[in-house]
Amino acid sequence: MRILFHDLTLDPEPWLAALRLAFPQADVALWQPGAPQADYALVWAPPQQLLDEQPRLKALFNIAAGVDALLKLRLPAGVPVFRLDDAGMAVQMAEYVAQAVIRFYRELDAVQADAQAGRWQQRQPQPRAQCPVGVMGLGVLGQRVLRGLQAFDFPLRGWSRTPKHMEGVQTFAGPEQWHEFLAGSRVLVNLLPLTPETENILNRSSLSRLLPGAYLINVARGRHLVDEDLLALLDNRHLVGALLDVFRQEPLPAEHPFWREPRIRITPHTSARTLQQESLSQMVAKMAALQAGAKPESLGGLVRPQVGY
Amino acid sequence: MRILFHDLTLDPEPWLAALRLAFPQADVALWQPGAPQADYALVWAPPQQLLDEQPRLKALFNIAAGVDALLKLRLPAGVPVFRLDDAGMAVQMAEYVAQAVIRFYRELDAVQADAQAGRWQQRQPQPRAQCPVGVMGLGVLGQRVLRGLQAFDFPLRGWSRTPKHMEGVQTFAGPEQWHEFLAGSRVLVNLLPLTPETENILNRSSLSRLLPGAYLINVARGRHLVDEDLLALLDNRHLVGALLDVFRQEPLPAEHPFWREPRIRITPHTSARTLQQESLSQMVAKMAALQAGAKPESLGGLVRPQVGY
Repeated sequence: MRILFHDLTLDPEPWLAALRLAFPQADVALWQPGAPQADYALVWAPPQQLLDEQPRLKALFNIAAGVDALLKLRLPAGVPVFRLDDAGMAVQMAEYVAQAVIRFYRELDAVQADAQAGRWQQRQPQPRAQCPVGVMGLGVLGQRVLRGLQAFDFPLRGWSRTPKHMEGVQTFAGPEQWHEFLAGSRVLVNLLPLTPETENILNRSSLSRLLPGAYLINVARGRHLVDEDLLALLDNRHLVGALLDVFRQEPLPAEHPFWREPRIRITPHTSARTLQQESLSQMVAKMAALQAGAKPESLGGLVRPQVGY
Repeated sequence: MRILFHDLTLDPEPWLAALRLAFPQADVALWQPGAPQADYALVWAPPQQLLDEQPRLKALFNIAAGVDALLKLRLPAGVPVFRLDDAGMAVQMAEYVAQAVIRFYRELDAVQADAQAGRWQQRQPQPRAQCPVGVMGLGVLGQRVLRGLQAFDFPLRGWSRTPKHMEGVQTFAGPEQWHEFLAGSRVLVNLLPLTPETENILNRSSLSRLLPGAYLINVARGRHLVDEDLLALLDNRHLVGALLDVFRQEPLPAEHPFWREPRIRITPHTSARTLQQESLSQMVAKMAALQAGAKPESLGGLVRPQVGY
């Protein structure tokens, strides 16, 4: 059994060591051009050459939940592709979004600024009914985020491509319910996969349908958002702020206007980090199951390239 | 039926109007010295004279959860005293504490400071097991706070005067388990009532027993905390920070050293605000029940002066 690894954003050594520990009989190596045929490859943003040279993989593992970068390439025909599903990321996403929603609802950035200026200034609480939160995307991450927000009694709404049911959440599906979903949401949380259908979905037309005084939280992909449209809706005050964790170009270039807009909070693609241990255990368990004869369809996180995630 | 109202921190008009709406036959008035005997009084921090002049109240309602200010006075003998229990405050407390714990665990203040300085700087996630959260006080507020934190998989501990059981929380009780509770907690959240036993309970001896790199969240009363001891433990770096919502003197005086310590975050006693509508419905329901002959012991929030809350 041969396993290849390719992720230029990580220190590979602990990953290789952990794979060797999990599969002592396996040949585990960093991918290099011309590497011999492998059974499995663990990759993030691989070069096309890797995919072209490995047509006989039993499975390709994407070291992230989002597969948009991978699906832009030509995949080897018939090779099952897995994305990370959860692997410790869902709870991080849930807590990141929860603190963002709470800070918006409770005006805690302003409270903090008061304190830093030495001001003791109480604010009137807003009725919770005026702060419905709408989550776009009801997969593993979206459902986990909603479960976190549920602990704080916010009115909750969810929108997904195909109809989903969630206890305590008003759900909407497909293009026909998109406007209705937006019209009742004050905080909008984007957790959609990036596909040709969802690219630029956060634009002037969609964001201007939100309740007045709206707040945007984008934790999915930078290409979901039309940057200029967000700035325009902040300018006309339909939106009062945004928290962005993802950007069209990362790191966000120094000259980008988002850095200079105080109503936009920026975090460096950190809402849900890939956790080595959890990600590896998940991929190792799937490789072991496939080696034992399991069908790829029976395992979680199998990517459907025709759907885009 | 006669109802008196006394709370100098609030605009009384909406409260009087709502009481008159709930009890159209009642005589509802602001308390003034020499006011005729009433059936019920709704008070926050009343003068001793009010209590002395109203010995025949059927019940006295404290417009807050904490009754420490009231219990310092001579209460009319045999008059049941009710504190607010929940009334929309518990969920506020849960969300306030949750965002504070998440921001500490995820280093989001530092992330925010990076972004404000235009820096794109990712940080290594800490293992969640290294961030056990200990909550002091397991009443309505403490249990609600723990339920909020439970949504994010933190290891949870709770300490109370008398033994309590809570699913998914390691509980400790009484002086004999106090040190053991502290020794396994990294974040300490104080929600105790202020009584002679709990005054100054957050001191050098107790705080230095927390796990290294500890963080304190005080949302109960300023007199629980020995201010100098917190500063000393920040100086020797056993504690890395604190979020304080309550102070010995409020507003916190301009010359207090807490204002000048960047590792202390200050909020203006705003963690859980009294909500007029929820508080009034709760007190109105209790007055109606008492009028209908209910025993005070059968209603929630009855204060036991001998215990102190």
